[in-house]
Amino acid sequence: MHATHLCCPRCRWETELKLVYSCERCGFSLDVRYDYDSVDKSALKAAFSGGRLWSFRELLPLSAGYGPLTLLEGGTPLLPSVSLGKSFGFELLFKDETRNPTASFKDRPNTVGISMARQFGAKAVAIASTGNGAASISAYAARGGMPCYVFVPEHTSASKLLQIRSHGAELVLTPGDYSASFAAAQDACLREGWANMTSTYLNPYTMEGDKTIAYELFSRLEGRVPDWIIVPLGAGAMLTGVYKGYRELQALGFVSELPRMCGVQASGCAPITRAWEENLPEVLEWENCETVAHAIADPLTGYAKDGTRTLTTIRESNGCGITAPEDDIIRHAAMLARKEGLYVEAGAASASAAAELLYKKGLAAHGQTVVAIITGHGLKENKIIGGAPDESKG
Amino acid sequence: MHATHLCCPRCRWETELKLVYSCERCGFSLDVRYDYDSVDKSALKAAFSGGRLWSFRELLPLSAGYGPLTLLEGGTPLLPSVSLGKSFGFELLFKDETRNPTASFKDRPNTVGISMARQFGAKAVAIASTGNGAASISAYAARGGMPCYVFVPEHTSASKLLQIRSHGAELVLTPGDYSASFAAAQDACLREGWANMTSTYLNPYTMEGDKTIAYELFSRLEGRVPDWIIVPLGAGAMLTGVYKGYRELQALGFVSELPRMCGVQASGCAPITRAWEENLPEVLEWENCETVAHAIADPLTGYAKDGTRTLTTIRESNGCGITAPEDDIIRHAAMLARKEGLYVEAGAASASAAAELLYKKGLAAHGQTVVAIITGHGLKENKIIGGAPDESKG
Repeated sequence: MHATHLCCPRCRWETELKLVYSCERCGFSLDVRYDYDSVDKSALKAAFSGGRLWSFRELLPLSAGYGPLTLLEGGTPLLPSVSLGKSFGFELLFKDETRNPTASFKDRPNTVGISMARQFGAKAVAIASTGNGAASISAYAARGGMPCYVFVPEHTSASKLLQIRSHGAELVLTPGDYSASFAAAQDACLREGWANMTSTYLNPYTMEGDKTIAYELFSRLEGRVPDWIIVPLGAGAMLTGVYKGYRELQALGFVSELPRMCGVQASGCAPITRAWEENLPEVLEWENCETVAHAIADPLTGYAKDGTRTLTTIRESNGCGITAPEDDIIRHAAMLARKEGLYVEAGAASASAAAELLYKKGLAAHGQTVVAIITGHGLKENKIIGGAPDESKG
Repeated sequence: MHATHLCCPRCRWETELKLVYSCERCGFSLDVRYDYDSVDKSALKAAFSGGRLWSFRELLPLSAGYGPLTLLEGGTPLLPSVSLGKSFGFELLFKDETRNPTASFKDRPNTVGISMARQFGAKAVAIASTGNGAASISAYAARGGMPCYVFVPEHTSASKLLQIRSHGAELVLTPGDYSASFAAAQDACLREGWANMTSTYLNPYTMEGDKTIAYELFSRLEGRVPDWIIVPLGAGAMLTGVYKGYRELQALGFVSELPRMCGVQASGCAPITRAWEENLPEVLEWENCETVAHAIADPLTGYAKDGTRTLTTIRESNGCGITAPEDDIIRHAAMLARKEGLYVEAGAASASAAAELLYKKGLAAHGQTVVAIITGHGLKENKIIGGAPDESKG
């Protein structure tokens, strides 16, 4: 285990590895840091030859004496596009995160986050979410025999909570909208010592799960670095996580280039990509969030600074933000099903829509390699691809 | 490619590799045969070190000049039970087939079946199914740009066909029950030259996909053969396929032992396991099929001989048939979600229910290894685990 401490990427404040959710000096989110010089690179090469998420344990923060709480997540396929990529003239590859245990990428951050929570002796986990994040963490908590508290707005329909309830998670209904649930989860965690697994930059360990996507891409592409990686954004921790993974590969001497990161949001809720398009210094909260892409619909109310962190990563990587029109997203969900054999949720279809926009804007050139991350399975929101509207969050 | 011909396992009639659905002498289903002596065993050893279904191409029937039609299926995890196995006193392992592209094991038989259909020049594929089989084959057909005809009873609710429709498959509504759809699909395939992918023993190539489960178990267990493998049964081609995989491993000198095969059906539709329990020479059709385990509800109307083939395999393997009470299945679906973190469809929960019955009947002994095949994801039938009834077939 080579993780050494937590560090604030904004003001450089440092602290030991523990359950803490923000910089005590400036209030920003925190990052896990490693001593890369001590990593056994030949052992790592074996891990890169395949395997699932925990085969990268050398670069994860779990202490040697602790076992991971795992459902054997990760190791997802990289599927070449057979149709869309051809019309764009570049190599389009789908990183199929629907193949994780609970059918979305959230299993990556959560397996690391809950394993660390267990290491630190947390008695329970909590999350503010009604969607993929909650379904995922409730499955892991069930497997680990840990209580799990899911904070949701009080008017959330019972039907969309079926999967969460079946894992035995406790629902905490809060008055008001999602922001109120977010705040209530945060308060309860600080008060009770529960580990907060809410899918933002809040928990510094979850991004360590996201970054393993970079390792798997490195492995599957045999060291070749994609020109672009397209990531659907809620708060955007996955985008920053994947980029962190590549920066680590660079620090370890495995790659020299870095990919350009493309973040995509739906036009009905696009605080981060709007800030990129308007060249704002900071991300602002989004008002009147209304989109078909529920899994990535995050207005960032109360934590716009998380969006700013994602915006910073996009700029660092010489990447771009893309706002995908709602109609494009629906059209791409249908195209993925009809032309590629992929049945995905609308949030995931936004990655495919962004690939088309990278092509139309001339940002991805002929012969380049573009990876689109397919974040969640269509079975999670059958009605959208079939035509009728649905609702889901987080 | 080492496949040599098709052979009738009952009367030994032989024919070349082609699209044919029954023995022209006795009417039984057919089997793909190989020349095992010509297989390069060292190349095979590399395939066994991991990878997905088509890494076992040496032992699959696709000719060298043809590419597989694949969504990168297989390579699914073998997840140790953390709760149930402990109370039974044996090592219980879940082979998690929900991690396939369309979230059920059907992607294995279908990727091989449709790849062979393409090799033989079939212009389209067809299936009689309203459930996992149809969802799977329509995804593959979409990816391959092949027309796909799905035969369903005319009163099937539109909502359960959403996934199938979204892949662009053509629905053919037939008057009467599932048997009528089965017959209509068969007629249309013979008339039009479409490849019939109906999930029974009809298509001799699909079982070649099922058998790869054995190879993966061999690989993951590092050569150790499980004492028992539990397979939920519709017609039971998967059970015979997995056993065939182990017999091939024996023929190739990789294993000396064979596993005992346990087939499980739900008490509301149990033609095969009833025949085993009553020690009948042949399986009889089931009347008034009514079960919560829709994915394995097959009364075998019109093809009871397929059930007899499965029964024969169970007997050959010194295995057993288990009829799981409906209440046990519902209880196990809930237990898997609450104790193991696995969200599965009722048909898959029957495998867990069977593990408990193997324990109670004293058939699986202390310290033995039992593999339960988890056939399909709970997202496919949310309502059952949540409490309310649902409907699905095939």
